[in-house]
Amino acid sequence: MNNSEINAYMSEWMRNVAEVPVVMSSRIRLARNLNNHVHPLMFPSEEAGFRVINEVQDALPEMSIQRLDMMDQQSKYKLVAKHLISPELIKQPASALLANEDESLSVMVNEEDHIRIQAMGNDLSLHSLYEKASEIDDKLDKALDISFDENLGYLTTCPTNIGTGMRASVMVHLPGLSIMNRMNRIAQTISRFGFTIRGIYGEGSQVYGHIYQISNQLTLGNTEDHIIESLNEVVQQIINEELQIRDQLNEHNHSETLDRVYRSLGILKYSRLMNMEEASLRLSDVKLGIDLGYLELEHFKFNEMMIAMQTPFLLDDEDDRSVNEIRAQILREHIN
Amino acid sequence: MNNSEINAYMSEWMRNVAEVPVVMSSRIRLARNLNNHVHPLMFPSEEAGFRVINEVQDALPEMSIQRLDMMDQQSKYKLVAKHLISPELIKQPASALLANEDESLSVMVNEEDHIRIQAMGNDLSLHSLYEKASEIDDKLDKALDISFDENLGYLTTCPTNIGTGMRASVMVHLPGLSIMNRMNRIAQTISRFGFTIRGIYGEGSQVYGHIYQISNQLTLGNTEDHIIESLNEVVQQIINEELQIRDQLNEHNHSETLDRVYRSLGILKYSRLMNMEEASLRLSDVKLGIDLGYLELEHFKFNEMMIAMQTPFLLDDEDDRSVNEIRAQILREHIN
Repeated sequence: MNNSEINAYMSEWMRNVAEVPVVMSSRIRLARNLNNHVHPLMFPSEEAGFRVINEVQDALPEMSIQRLDMMDQQSKYKLVAKHLISPELIKQPASALLANEDESLSVMVNEEDHIRIQAMGNDLSLHSLYEKASEIDDKLDKALDISFDENLGYLTTCPTNIGTGMRASVMVHLPGLSIMNRMNRIAQTISRFGFTIRGIYGEGSQVYGHIYQISNQLTLGNTEDHIIESLNEVVQQIINEELQIRDQLNEHNHSETLDRVYRSLGILKYSRLMNMEEASLRLSDVKLGIDLGYLELEHFKFNEMMIAMQTPFLLDDEDDRSVNEIRAQILREHIN
Repeated sequence: MNNSEINAYMSEWMRNVAEVPVVMSSRIRLARNLNNHVHPLMFPSEEAGFRVINEVQDALPEMSIQRLDMMDQQSKYKLVAKHLISPELIKQPASALLANEDESLSVMVNEEDHIRIQAMGNDLSLHSLYEKASEIDDKLDKALDISFDENLGYLTTCPTNIGTGMRASVMVHLPGLSIMNRMNRIAQTISRFGFTIRGIYGEGSQVYGHIYQISNQLTLGNTEDHIIESLNEVVQQIINEELQIRDQLNEHNHSETLDRVYRSLGILKYSRLMNMEEASLRLSDVKLGIDLGYLELEHFKFNEMMIAMQTPFLLDDEDDRSVNEIRAQILREHIN
């Protein structure tokens, strides 16, 4: 698997990102529904779903469309890898994805809600992402009859999304806090402020590579700006704690941290079998080593490697080797 | 630490040994005592010890002598590393080592017994080692009054050595049998034939790098030739079992074995902290990989690496780094 093949699993906006510590990406997601259609989970027929897709497509002519019923399995998985669609969208009989050119702006049609607008970026830029998502929202609002209640706000399929319909989230790499077993305390603290911390693929998903998604739990009774401002503060606080604990590791556990980083590099370069959990942790160690200045690896991109190590599952498989064998090979080739 | 420094911890006969599987070295040791002296552990004064040393030295003028009371700590430890003397010999107030040029033949004076003749070689050559040791034995017998009983044979300080006074031993590398947890069964089996299996440094010592010493337990009621013949058979049987189990590992656990070997190589090349137990196991894995044809490492000598990884303890220490840090560096430099 070469770099161009890995690029098939990455959106344009994800590429050539500067390697900075902690923040990996941000996302704003707005859930919207249409008044004159039943909820996607209640569609009586595929046609009901296609009617929604057509209406949304007409409202956003500048975006390209991919209808999932016309795609092969491989192509759908690529969209999941890019975080453009959820695995749930694949299960829907009539669903689609609209996206702009670099895929930083997209709209899922007929997931749990009729419309889910997504704006993604590779730094902590929630306000500007919200503005971009709002532009799409405004266009849809002009063209379509969006479900909105004067008291409650936007109406959604799941009550946890009612109100702003907004989920703001930031993906952060927290090796220091993870190694020092601080994540439980942090999860407890931020939940008191209405935020939640989860794995890479959202709710209930496993944590890989010490990467966490921090997002708002509450969508009701607060303005979008206020939610974003609070999340920014929470994330900034976590960034500070992470950087502090890295300083401590570097100062008081220097040999152990150096050893941890270099061992993981050696194992990535030499192992012949590697499961996904170990791969993610070894990559996390190497990224920590780069951030701490222990290592310089010109071509190492943490987000690319995290995607590369997931690709064995996505390969057309005429290969009779195990997934862990293929993963080890991909990692060896990419880390050298 | 460069190669010439490591060579200071190796005898001439240990160097430039071909890398073969399993058998690392063989040794014959003969325990003898003098009639007209009390046992070394009972010496009333240092002078009593020096008198024994002088008698032995006079009987073996062709051998060079090192008196331990005239040596610094470092030099004594080098002799221990070379297996020329036991740690016990260092504790004696008046003790010495006599040796031929390549140190394959040597005599410890005033360890537990007055005289311990040792012949060492790097293959399974117990008969010829016994012949070499016997030549020294004959010279001593002509010049000195050796304790010998017509019924019991040679008399020794510890009753377990009475009779032939001979300990024949073979050092074997058994990674396959160790990985597959067969060592307990093998130890039980061979003990029924009067043999015992131990770690590198003899009785009660820890096993490092899957290297074991197999030797006769009984010295009484058997001829030397018969003991050696039985030990040869036992060792040959263990070699066969080890090679069989390696074939199985290679055939039925190919990926896992390859992964094990390459991971250990990667860790040896990259780690920054390494304790002695782990180092020995990683080196054992790499040696297994070479034996199985997975790896070619031109300059890798298993016995040299096993000695190199022990040297941090032996260094004059103005270095404020930990022993595990120094060991990791020595291994990195020698494996590349």
